[in-house]
Amino acid sequence: MSGTSTAPERLSRLSVNQMTVRQLDLPDLVDACLALGVRGVGLWREPVRAYGVDAAARLVREAGLTVTTLCRGGFLTATDPSERARALDDNRRAVDEAAALGTDTLVLVSGGLPAGSKDLRGARERIADALGELGPYAAGHGVRLAVEPLHPMYAADRCVVSTLTQALDLAERFPAEQVGVTVDTYHVWWDDTAPEQIARAGAGGRLHAFQLADWTTPLPEGVLNGRGRLGDGSVDLREWTARVEAAGYTGPIEVELFNDELWARDGREVLAETVARFVEHVVR
Amino acid sequence: MSGTSTAPERLSRLSVNQMTVRQLDLPDLVDACLALGVRGVGLWREPVRAYGVDAAARLVREAGLTVTTLCRGGFLTATDPSERARALDDNRRAVDEAAALGTDTLVLVSGGLPAGSKDLRGARERIADALGELGPYAAGHGVRLAVEPLHPMYAADRCVVSTLTQALDLAERFPAEQVGVTVDTYHVWWDDTAPEQIARAGAGGRLHAFQLADWTTPLPEGVLNGRGRLGDGSVDLREWTARVEAAGYTGPIEVELFNDELWARDGREVLAETVARFVEHVVR
Repeated sequence: MSGTSTAPERLSRLSVNQMTVRQLDLPDLVDACLALGVRGVGLWREPVRAYGVDAAARLVREAGLTVTTLCRGGFLTATDPSERARALDDNRRAVDEAAALGTDTLVLVSGGLPAGSKDLRGARERIADALGELGPYAAGHGVRLAVEPLHPMYAADRCVVSTLTQALDLAERFPAEQVGVTVDTYHVWWDDTAPEQIARAGAGGRLHAFQLADWTTPLPEGVLNGRGRLGDGSVDLREWTARVEAAGYTGPIEVELFNDELWARDGREVLAETVARFVEHVVR
Repeated sequence: MSGTSTAPERLSRLSVNQMTVRQLDLPDLVDACLALGVRGVGLWREPVRAYGVDAAARLVREAGLTVTTLCRGGFLTATDPSERARALDDNRRAVDEAAALGTDTLVLVSGGLPAGSKDLRGARERIADALGELGPYAAGHGVRLAVEPLHPMYAADRCVVSTLTQALDLAERFPAEQVGVTVDTYHVWWDDTAPEQIARAGAGGRLHAFQLADWTTPLPEGVLNGRGRLGDGSVDLREWTARVEAAGYTGPIEVELFNDELWARDGREVLAETVARFVEHVVR
């Protein structure tokens, strides 16, 4: 499979997710992106709120950077009514923050099973209910919800939506301008049904975000912070990028690594390396 | 969903996989099974060969135990011709050992990606080629190959077959008496397409083995030895057992736990606890 995008165009679409270099504070991240010619950033709610949402919005806007996504809303599987109401409130605030930051995409991580529950199907239904409440609110603020399937190893404790098929089955109950999906290579690379689901998402106008990370082993304890640097692992990043492009995706390509070893290093050095690896493994 | 099996019948079908209590040597395992009324054991090649295949066969036969499976053959994804030939030879030996032990089922773990490869599809095709060579050999010895999909978190380094759909797509290229599948709840519990694939496997006479383990988090480093004790995790064991029974499966129900904490304990105590948990979470 060959890409539908030229090399310079792909490079211009690179976005660095804030978590990749979470050791950099927001001004340093912005400064490092400008120095390296990176034009987009994916931001996280916690550091943005710590800095101040309006101040963060001004900082990135004045730097001329695009906020490609806000990570993340979700965690919508609670059965307890007050817990559920709190989650919905929190997601409406996440929409407000996304709108303030000027991004049109809020990434949603659905949430795991409530304590003691074994009911995956019920949890997935509660996500649908929540999307029905949040979708119109988001669209009213110019924000699209991007349901992200997480790798099945997170199904119990983090995200009961494990495949693009499941994410699209949820999203398609609602208008595409309200709910779509996030494709992250780390989560879907193993799935031989994912390519056709990417085509389905593209055809429906629901490819709202695309993120890259490589898959390396052994996985660390807790399996959260061992995402591979681009090119270090088993994922054919060029092929997956070509797949979303073939499905009509022309949006940002966000690199999102959670990796203890990277976080222990100099953040600007990691960012420069990430750009170089993006060129080597995705652009060329 | 309700089971199609009576409680005493389910209990009589309990088999304990040797790895669950690998701290017990083979005579102690046999003795402990007899003391607890366990009638079946799933054996592993390495400890069986260390004890001697013929001696092991005699030991379990004279004790009146059934060897429900031999674990495991597989690792059939090499591209290097001599490595591939060695793997096929080794699998023929595994078939011989299964036949000597009197079990009709050899569990296959397919193997991961060769070093540096990102080609999951190619690796899966090489497994099909190998099954074409091994299937007739196995059937000639009264042994069925049972392709086991492993959880997608093992796709890179252990098993490129991640779902029952993939396993059945491979198996169905060959006669059912040659190649079927293993259903292990630990590997498939997250997958909402697995129930229909269990029905497909049952309809085709390809449900060759059924294993139980629970899913608990956090996962340990390397994600190999953190399988949950029955009842400790997110898997509805009774429902999955009912599913394989509804698909016509009346064979052994094997408990296979890889768990560092269990291995550090007294093996007979762990075995007794496993039987009690099987009664509580599967039989009743």
